Amino acid sequence: MPSLDLSADVVALTQQLVDIESVSLDEQAIADAVEQALAVHDHLTLTRIGNSIVARTELGRAERVILAGHLDTVPVNDNLPSRNDGTYLHGLGSTDMKGGDAVILKLAAELREPNRDLTYVLYEAEEIAAVHNGLGMLTTERPDLLTGDFAILMESSCAEVEAGCQGTLRVEVRTRGERAHSARAWTGSNAIHAAEPILATLRDYAPRRPVIDGLEFHEGLNAVFISGGVAGNVIPDECVVTINYRFAPDRDEAEAVAHLEQLFDGYEITVTDSSPGALPGLERPAAREFLAAVRAEVRPKFGWTDVARFSALGIPAVNYGPGDAAYAHKQDEKVLISRIEQCESALREWLGGTA
Amino acid sequence: MPSLDLSADVVALTQQLVDIESVSLDEQAIADAVEQALAVHDHLTLTRIGNSIVARTELGRAERVILAGHLDTVPVNDNLPSRNDGTYLHGLGSTDMKGGDAVILKLAAELREPNRDLTYVLYEAEEIAAVHNGLGMLTTERPDLLTGDFAILMESSCAEVEAGCQGTLRVEVRTRGERAHSARAWTGSNAIHAAEPILATLRDYAPRRPVIDGLEFHEGLNAVFISGGVAGNVIPDECVVTINYRFAPDRDEAEAVAHLEQLFDGYEITVTDSSPGALPGLERPAAREFLAAVRAEVRPKFGWTDVARFSALGIPAVNYGPGDAAYAHKQDEKVLISRIEQCESALREWLGGTA
Repeated sequence: MPSLDLSADVVALTQQLVDIESVSLDEQAIADAVEQALAVHDHLTLTRIGNSIVARTELGRAERVILAGHLDTVPVNDNLPSRNDGTYLHGLGSTDMKGGDAVILKLAAELREPNRDLTYVLYEAEEIAAVHNGLGMLTTERPDLLTGDFAILMESSCAEVEAGCQGTLRVEVRTRGERAHSARAWTGSNAIHAAEPILATLRDYAPRRPVIDGLEFHEGLNAVFISGGVAGNVIPDECVVTINYRFAPDRDEAEAVAHLEQLFDGYEITVTDSSPGALPGLERPAAREFLAAVRAEVRPKFGWTDVARFSALGIPAVNYGPGDAAYAHKQDEKVLISRIEQCESALREWLGGTA
Repeated sequence: MPSLDLSADVVALTQQLVDIESVSLDEQAIADAVEQALAVHDHLTLTRIGNSIVARTELGRAERVILAGHLDTVPVNDNLPSRNDGTYLHGLGSTDMKGGDAVILKLAAELREPNRDLTYVLYEAEEIAAVHNGLGMLTTERPDLLTGDFAILMESSCAEVEAGCQGTLRVEVRTRGERAHSARAWTGSNAIHAAEPILATLRDYAPRRPVIDGLEFHEGLNAVFISGGVAGNVIPDECVVTINYRFAPDRDEAEAVAHLEQLFDGYEITVTDSSPGALPGLERPAAREFLAAVRAEVRPKFGWTDVARFSALGIPAVNYGPGDAAYAHKQDEKVLISRIEQCESALREWLGGTA
């Protein structure tokens, strides 16, 4: 059974984590190792739910901060075991997001007297369908474990702060026609031709770029799939355009749906997927102090991330982690060693440990 | 082994043919029965190629007429054996086209001294990919067996005459874009949106309706398939619109391709399928005499049929058969008994037998 040595430095610990294979739905070994490594630390209260682990200090501090990371990776792609070339640590999960997990575990083991109470969350199944997501499960089943004033999700952000996130909505917009033999096309009605105004609307759409808490978001409205057709000699009676709307967090899910209903008035619209955005929340005291401490650049987060789950609980949250999203899910996944060290030392300093 | 009794009346003979199952690529039993039934008639010279049979009179007449029908059917769909309700003969192949085959076999057996030389062609594999087509094989391998002044393909035409046929061309028109995460759509380029002008051109297209030999043809230009998309969160980098152009027989295949290249100038175009049309040829003496004799209505043929194979050999050809295309390939396939009898007697009278 693999184990973890939390007394190793944060880079060596990242390497240990990478070398425990943990593809989504196969996280038991890594969760066991994490649980065992934290259990020896009596300043932490441990809870395990499935393959997700929550470790909390209970010091009665005025403020509580959550540090969270997922333990799973996308499938192995001939990119294990890890390799350290002195500048980069290479290997599956190095960037997404075991570098961040290593920072969390180092702080959990060593910050015995932090200036804020801390909740460390290491969870399963982020890389697959939302129904499996360990953080989602905790928010539903044990929200009491996730109370707090500020959350930091240590997802890949190049050690900069990504605040808020845009929502995402997927709808199918459908046209109908009438089948006929294509040699007598005029006896039918072509549903693919009828999709032309949908594409024209998409092509001509000017996405909003609202500024929220000083951050400029950038919406997007795009066809991600189109399909139609019955046979090579049949006038098609249906065409489906699947549209993904990425909406800024000043708009909620219902408003996003209403916007698409207005844009595609007169067509059949089916919502297939929807997740709300998250406001940056940078005006909250905990967020302001964090930003001042880490001295990192602050950018808006365009993609959807699990920070929205904290937002839904009323907890302001940011992405802040050593990985680089450009290397996530790639065969040549890697992480800059200096960024892992930078994140660890910035958080340690802010949370009142020795830097 | 099934056999055929050509002394039965044409309706009973249709029923015998329907009851010999002959789905495409499984025509050996029916071809054996046809060959055996015709072999006893010494006024015919028989040639068998695969499961196609050609029977010819060799009387030195001034003119030669070809009567042709395919022996195969689409797959069985709980519609065998045949059933005669007094008005309709029901069963797979009754309309498409064993009613026509029965007329051919009756005339072949009984017209010992026709006023024109006759070539009877009963061929395999019309209902599947063109590469298997028995008539196509004969035109390539034994064009000497298919010489003639006029050809009648006894495909379903409700005992009316369908002259000529439109050509058919299929092309893929392709747009390219650049993949990107849909949360940062502006870093890519959407190939589905780029397909909008293609659909606009199709929707606004005014098809030609040229009059040829007094018959009004009717072209058609239609998307029959559209597809594009990579994943629900990816800007798609390719969209393919498959277009079927049905073109009147005053335009050849090269002109049809040139027309689409002009319409979709600037897009990638790939021709995937092309078959020429056939001019009606109604001004030829043999055709004029046939029309005068059968006293049937003459319509243009919009769909593509094997008559184009005769046209390609320089032989004017028409569709004229008892079936009704509306029942072809349907589970409730059936043919009006009176139309089988009508076709038999009209042809018998024209060809100088006793009506």
